[in-house]
Amino acid sequence: MIKISVDVMGGDYGPEVTLAGAAIAQKYLPNIHFLFYGVGEVVEPILKKYPHLVAASCFYPTESYTRMDEKPSQALRTGRGKSSMWHAIEAVKNGKADACVSAGNTGALMAMSYFCLKMMAEAERPGIAGIWPTLRGESIVLDVGATIGASASQLVDLAVMGAGMFRVLYHIEKPSVALLNVGVEAVKGLDEIKKAGIILRKVQLDGLEYKGFIEGNDIGKGTIDVVVTEGFSGNIALKVAEGTARQIAETLNITMRSSIFSYFGYLVSRSAFRKLKHKMDPDRVNGGVLLGLNGIVIKSHGGATANGFAAAIRVGYEMVSNGLLKEIATDLLLFHESKASLLDDEGKAVMNMEMV
Amino acid sequence: MIKISVDVMGGDYGPEVTLAGAAIAQKYLPNIHFLFYGVGEVVEPILKKYPHLVAASCFYPTESYTRMDEKPSQALRTGRGKSSMWHAIEAVKNGKADACVSAGNTGALMAMSYFCLKMMAEAERPGIAGIWPTLRGESIVLDVGATIGASASQLVDLAVMGAGMFRVLYHIEKPSVALLNVGVEAVKGLDEIKKAGIILRKVQLDGLEYKGFIEGNDIGKGTIDVVVTEGFSGNIALKVAEGTARQIAETLNITMRSSIFSYFGYLVSRSAFRKLKHKMDPDRVNGGVLLGLNGIVIKSHGGATANGFAAAIRVGYEMVSNGLLKEIATDLLLFHESKASLLDDEGKAVMNMEMV
Repeated sequence: MIKISVDVMGGDYGPEVTLAGAAIAQKYLPNIHFLFYGVGEVVEPILKKYPHLVAASCFYPTESYTRMDEKPSQALRTGRGKSSMWHAIEAVKNGKADACVSAGNTGALMAMSYFCLKMMAEAERPGIAGIWPTLRGESIVLDVGATIGASASQLVDLAVMGAGMFRVLYHIEKPSVALLNVGVEAVKGLDEIKKAGIILRKVQLDGLEYKGFIEGNDIGKGTIDVVVTEGFSGNIALKVAEGTARQIAETLNITMRSSIFSYFGYLVSRSAFRKLKHKMDPDRVNGGVLLGLNGIVIKSHGGATANGFAAAIRVGYEMVSNGLLKEIATDLLLFHESKASLLDDEGKAVMNMEMV
Repeated sequence: MIKISVDVMGGDYGPEVTLAGAAIAQKYLPNIHFLFYGVGEVVEPILKKYPHLVAASCFYPTESYTRMDEKPSQALRTGRGKSSMWHAIEAVKNGKADACVSAGNTGALMAMSYFCLKMMAEAERPGIAGIWPTLRGESIVLDVGATIGASASQLVDLAVMGAGMFRVLYHIEKPSVALLNVGVEAVKGLDEIKKAGIILRKVQLDGLEYKGFIEGNDIGKGTIDVVVTEGFSGNIALKVAEGTARQIAETLNITMRSSIFSYFGYLVSRSAFRKLKHKMDPDRVNGGVLLGLNGIVIKSHGGATANGFAAAIRVGYEMVSNGLLKEIATDLLLFHESKASLLDDEGKAVMNMEMV
């Protein structure tokens, strides 16, 4: 049985969407069991509408919930031991749940998860991995905003964790990995990115294939499985892609209604538009994964629909069934051991290597 | 008369496109005069095809040209005093031309321009400003890759230069300006961005209206005229937007041809698709502007078509006719004076202000 704890109150729409999402997920994920956390009088009337869900879940009423606009420090102060988000995370810590899913406030989720679950021994810092729809399928991009800036070693940690997640989610033995960099030639690229590239090339990890640098316009081609960058540029990249997709959809919508001809054409080719919409649907690939912690926490988009929330639950489910944490811990350990031996052998040569 | 020097050899297609582009620009830009730089035997046979262009231009044969794959340092070493790119830039320095346009190697163009024209006294570092098509029209995003990282004061310089460019290009007296930041609440945003925000709010420059922070997904909405960020994230943002647009276009193309129905619909609504294509056309808004130098240099996309190259020429033309350099120099001076007085009055309070 795979046990998923859900912060039922999280997200822009709360229980209406999260419970509907759980009901959808229940249909296609075998042996799933839910632990629902939320404010009793809000959750119970809605939960009653889903008798199948009631049968396969436990509901734990909580004193409060974390609002979407609370600052992380505030959320931690007021929500600790009380809010639905906190309890859903704590269920993972106590072993009552295998993974936690929340559509709530990202900052609060990050802060509470970090505080409650702590970092795994092998990881230095947490990262958030996002799933990116591409021309070929899906890629993972990380860090999309857990922290800002990253050292070479932290970038390699992200590469290792992202590759582990890709293996678990898509069953590819050796995902391709690249570091996001800028292509303007005058700019030499950040030293830490170059160093990370040198380390990845030298260490030759078993669980990933390092492919070098990638530019922003190449992510969507889907030629690279795991794209690694620090959290500031990663967050901007993810949001720019979302914004551009929405911009094009809106422009398309307006132009298609700009004349009776084009609208007729639109009606005729509606199935193709539906396909397009499906392919670019942020819901379909919903679910950011908090990596590096002693537990699996999935962040759903706040504005996700029920289908989107179900997709986030599926991500958590896959992570658990395929043993994400063990994968990542083993690989991080291997990397840090190889790094150490690399430093013994070639010492400062690698770290101080002249950057071309 | 407005004199534009053109690196005829630059770009993926060289003289065939750059001269065709100049011929298009000549038709709608009154009183334009060209100074063409390129290798004689390559340029002359093509130039002959455009008698109107020949009449309104001078051709200066050069010894060499800068290749698209040369490293900036190498390009500077081998091209200095010799290549078409160098001569086109030097024409601006010598006052023979008012602005230079090149579709060549960005790094080389940046390096040569910096070396040849030098920084204007008021600016600390150069920036590249990109034009970003939005739902409402166009915005300017900078820096898109001249340098990496930026201090608070350098970010404000970029804001001032970008606003000057927006005024000159779109004739808006007080463009709105925002700083690109990340919205994940756990991340407090870079300190330098916050400081820049405090400075912009306190200094209250006449030529711009500071609106606070903006996230990556908001750029495409076009609610902000000038979006300011350092060159690494700016370059990634620009390229991710391009990549996403191309990805959607390709997906749309495939789905429209996926059945006879949808293809028929596509044919019927072709005019709407053409409108969409026009709106999202990178050519239409082609032309990155190198800001902060003692001269106007425009970078066209390497892969621009003749229409795209003409658009880049138009950007240079507008910059000259509306006195970009003077605008920017005056505003930078004003900013640095106000900043100094601000520091006198409130001293370290601003600079060390606690970041919330």
